[in-house]
Amino acid sequence: MGAIRNIFTSRSEKDGNFFGLIQKITGFKPKNLKCYEEAFTHRSLGLQNKKGHPFNYERLEFLGDAMLGAVIAAHLFDEVGRGDEGYLTKMRSKVVSREHLNELGRDLGLLNLIRAAIPKENFGVNIHGNLFEALVGAIYKDRGYKYARKFINTRVIDPYVDIEKLEGRVISYKSLLIEWCQKEKKSFNFNTYEDSGQDVIRHFSVKLSIDGKQVAKARATSKKKAEEKAAKRAYYVFQNKIDLQQFN
Amino acid sequence: MGAIRNIFTSRSEKDGNFFGLIQKITGFKPKNLKCYEEAFTHRSLGLQNKKGHPFNYERLEFLGDAMLGAVIAAHLFDEVGRGDEGYLTKMRSKVVSREHLNELGRDLGLLNLIRAAIPKENFGVNIHGNLFEALVGAIYKDRGYKYARKFINTRVIDPYVDIEKLEGRVISYKSLLIEWCQKEKKSFNFNTYEDSGQDVIRHFSVKLSIDGKQVAKARATSKKKAEEKAAKRAYYVFQNKIDLQQFN
Repeated sequence: MGAIRNIFTSRSEKDGNFFGLIQKITGFKPKNLKCYEEAFTHRSLGLQNKKGHPFNYERLEFLGDAMLGAVIAAHLFDEVGRGDEGYLTKMRSKVVSREHLNELGRDLGLLNLIRAAIPKENFGVNIHGNLFEALVGAIYKDRGYKYARKFINTRVIDPYVDIEKLEGRVISYKSLLIEWCQKEKKSFNFNTYEDSGQDVIRHFSVKLSIDGKQVAKARATSKKKAEEKAAKRAYYVFQNKIDLQQFN
Repeated sequence: MGAIRNIFTSRSEKDGNFFGLIQKITGFKPKNLKCYEEAFTHRSLGLQNKKGHPFNYERLEFLGDAMLGAVIAAHLFDEVGRGDEGYLTKMRSKVVSREHLNELGRDLGLLNLIRAAIPKENFGVNIHGNLFEALVGAIYKDRGYKYARKFINTRVIDPYVDIEKLEGRVISYKSLLIEWCQKEKKSFNFNTYEDSGQDVIRHFSVKLSIDGKQVAKARATSKKKAEEKAAKRAYYVFQNKIDLQQFN
């Protein structure tokens, strides 16, 4: 146990406040920091807890995967009322795809938090998704289902889970909006700039104007995502005017 | 919507109080009975809710499956500290095996609650497990994660999830106890009798005595399960005397 404490103490000194980083990433104060320490410890360090059990992120990854599955299932159950069991299963597997989880972990910069005996360059691409799952598992252990769900809502569902996109009915809200503007002879402008604010992670903001009037704002971890988000918001503003059918 | 209400009203008249049955099975008062009505409606009736979406147990089955996965994962995470991700995954799949879920649904007599346009005899064996999953989904929708976890603890984890058995270290606590009694020249007696009490489901009770002294009691939905449960309790009473190793 001493070994674990020392490692994270020295990390605090070297890399800044671990507690503060976790708080920024999760959006709430951690209660039991040890859960997060476990979530960011790689097996290469060979650490054990006081019971002599392995102390690394792999078990939390299992737990986080299960919690993600449950929270996403509950969300899709509510949002896709017409889909049967097979359809919901298919949609969930799109949301929690390995590729998607890797993107989530990469966006949050989780690899920066890892403690390992091997260099970061040696990790495969799946490390990002694995750490993301482990983080969800740590949140569940630390604060329970409600907080895990809240985190998944904020970091997975709100920015990424778009029923129309999952169903392939809309590929890109930005294209949809641009097509509509061109057809309707309206001018449009995506004013996009870096705006990381208090965030640990790089962020971008967008102000979207149509015919010189600002219609939507958005903020995300890449220019592309921020513009897509703003276009989606504008789409909902103009919902009656922009009809999906006309582009299908 | 009218159609749904009528069907369940007529069930109430015919089969007794649906609310009461759900309360007995779950152990708490349902808040939104419609969730449970959905969980026990078969697609053969072709019912729809007021939004025109299918109203049958299949979607709740998807939700319940996800909640079972999450709750069992959390339990194994806590109980099997030495197991890595792959090991935990393997153990979970034993607990939520199709065969096991069918047993759970059958024990609770869930098929008696179903409303379908086809005769009960025509359902395959998996209907029991499907209804069990749908019931878990209904509990989550009605009362949230906490109640779903409580139900899973009472109906799945407490009576069935035995780490030593899952790991194949103990096949049967009853055999273990009998072997020990024979070796130690002790007499034993399983006094087993039907004892359904207030339960909707048939139950059995066991009083287990060793050398004429009662050492454990148990109650379950079959003689075999009740005796196994009592033997397990006795095993923990005699833990220092009965050593697993001596039988391996």
